[in-house]
Amino acid sequence: MTHNPVASPNPVASPAPLTLLGTGAMGTALARAWLAAGHEVTVWNRTPARAEVLAAEGATVARTAAEAVAANRLVVACLLDDASVDAAFEGADLTGRDLVNLTTGTPAEGRARAEWAAARGARFLDGGIMAVPPMIGAPESGAYVFYSGSPELFAEHRETLAIPAGTRYVGADAGLAALHDVALLSAMTGMLAGIAHAFALIRPEDIAPKDFAPLLAEWLTAMMPAVHQSAERLESGDYTSNVVSNLAMQVAGNTTLLRTAEEQRVSPELLTPYMELMARRLAQGHGDEDGTGIIELLGLRPGVSA
Amino acid sequence: MTHNPVASPNPVASPAPLTLLGTGAMGTALARAWLAAGHEVTVWNRTPARAEVLAAEGATVARTAAEAVAANRLVVACLLDDASVDAAFEGADLTGRDLVNLTTGTPAEGRARAEWAAARGARFLDGGIMAVPPMIGAPESGAYVFYSGSPELFAEHRETLAIPAGTRYVGADAGLAALHDVALLSAMTGMLAGIAHAFALIRPEDIAPKDFAPLLAEWLTAMMPAVHQSAERLESGDYTSNVVSNLAMQVAGNTTLLRTAEEQRVSPELLTPYMELMARRLAQGHGDEDGTGIIELLGLRPGVSA
Repeated sequence: MTHNPVASPNPVASPAPLTLLGTGAMGTALARAWLAAGHEVTVWNRTPARAEVLAAEGATVARTAAEAVAANRLVVACLLDDASVDAAFEGADLTGRDLVNLTTGTPAEGRARAEWAAARGARFLDGGIMAVPPMIGAPESGAYVFYSGSPELFAEHRETLAIPAGTRYVGADAGLAALHDVALLSAMTGMLAGIAHAFALIRPEDIAPKDFAPLLAEWLTAMMPAVHQSAERLESGDYTSNVVSNLAMQVAGNTTLLRTAEEQRVSPELLTPYMELMARRLAQGHGDEDGTGIIELLGLRPGVSA
Repeated sequence: MTHNPVASPNPVASPAPLTLLGTGAMGTALARAWLAAGHEVTVWNRTPARAEVLAAEGATVARTAAEAVAANRLVVACLLDDASVDAAFEGADLTGRDLVNLTTGTPAEGRARAEWAAARGARFLDGGIMAVPPMIGAPESGAYVFYSGSPELFAEHRETLAIPAGTRYVGADAGLAALHDVALLSAMTGMLAGIAHAFALIRPEDIAPKDFAPLLAEWLTAMMPAVHQSAERLESGDYTSNVVSNLAMQVAGNTTLLRTAEEQRVSPELLTPYMELMARRLAQGHGDEDGTGIIELLGLRPGVSA
């Protein structure tokens, strides 16, 4: 854009200044990444002592959130929860601000916050951080943030946002970042539950966890194509073509898993809810499906109990 | 061993003949792999018609299981369940036989079968097949079989056993093949439950499953080091050193997962059992641990109810 004589508010040549509200473990890691990249960072924290640490590293510490918001156009919030966001911005003038909310929340909170920001004259982007603080500012860590909301805000601040972690924009609906974040964490919860059950099974035996771990990690990794197969079936609506191990066979196989848990004196509680859904889908006459149809049993329709 | 003038019963130069009991989908796939590799295969099936198909492909079909067992020293069983193994071998003379049981079962069934075989003068190896039939005889599929039991039997027939799928010998205790098999399948069940919940969450939105799938598979794969971390902690007994996201933080984070499920009208039933264990471990004063301590809550001690 060398033909444009009007100076860009955030020229690529000089890192854009920004404000960060919230200097907990994650906020501090974010601030350090931006400071290290040469950005001027104004920070505010409800407990001032936690922000003062960053002053020694070059950050400007604002006495109030309103003062911090007034300092820069780009305002990033990384607070405890949605209620903390309300509390922090009380009395701040958001007119003309670009607000990026990295506070953990639900999709509905992201959507409500987008409306709240629009009513106050600010553009809004919600973010879901897929990382723990030590991964921030370390590109090799694979850390990234899901973003959703204003495409203009994202386009304008993309380079700045990419400093602490990778960026993945998932749509203009501000709820989608939190939804992606929570969906991935939920799937991880299931995987961790399965891993816990597996280790519990081998514990009574003379098997070194370190010898078992590579087999387990390799197996779960090898099963990852199931994700893509389920996606294809959900898109086509066809749960029965080219099924190698069908639901009827899987349900029959579950008895061996349950009997083994009993033999090893391991509670089956982490496996039974999914097995019960499998049995329910089978009882509904879907024994020729792969497992994808089970997803249909999880959705609660309004007015219909589970 | 070129100095040994005594002929080996299974010289490397000519594929060893073997007997296979059970020609269901898996047995048929195994038979075809051995036939394709030049092995003489004698087959028997309770329902003769399913074995006759293999006759056209070069197999010898025995009229009775006893006749099939008499035909070869190496006898592989791939039957419906443990009771089918009892039924098939009734009246057969196992003296001097090398019995490899690929029938799905529990660790206790594997151990009992090893004693049963020893009492009948046979060496015994139990196997757990980590594959579906189409993966058999296709080295690129990654199919393999866990084996446990007689190390001598395994050493002698290793090359023959490696024809249909890779071999992984996990110990002389005949129960260990089934235990490894079931532990991996159990972990997979947990992972599939998590994947189902994740897809259920995004279903109400305008998100293409095919766009979401790569993010989900990448995330779960990136979390795989958790398996190795748990193994290290189980070996050391130290669940609290270098914990980045501790149990107290994880339990707090679970509320966002549950509130999101409620917003998306998805039943939380696949996540709550693990979350309840997390909360229980936290309540016991282990908020500074990573998640590994949860495994201790799964083991049922004799005389103690869950």
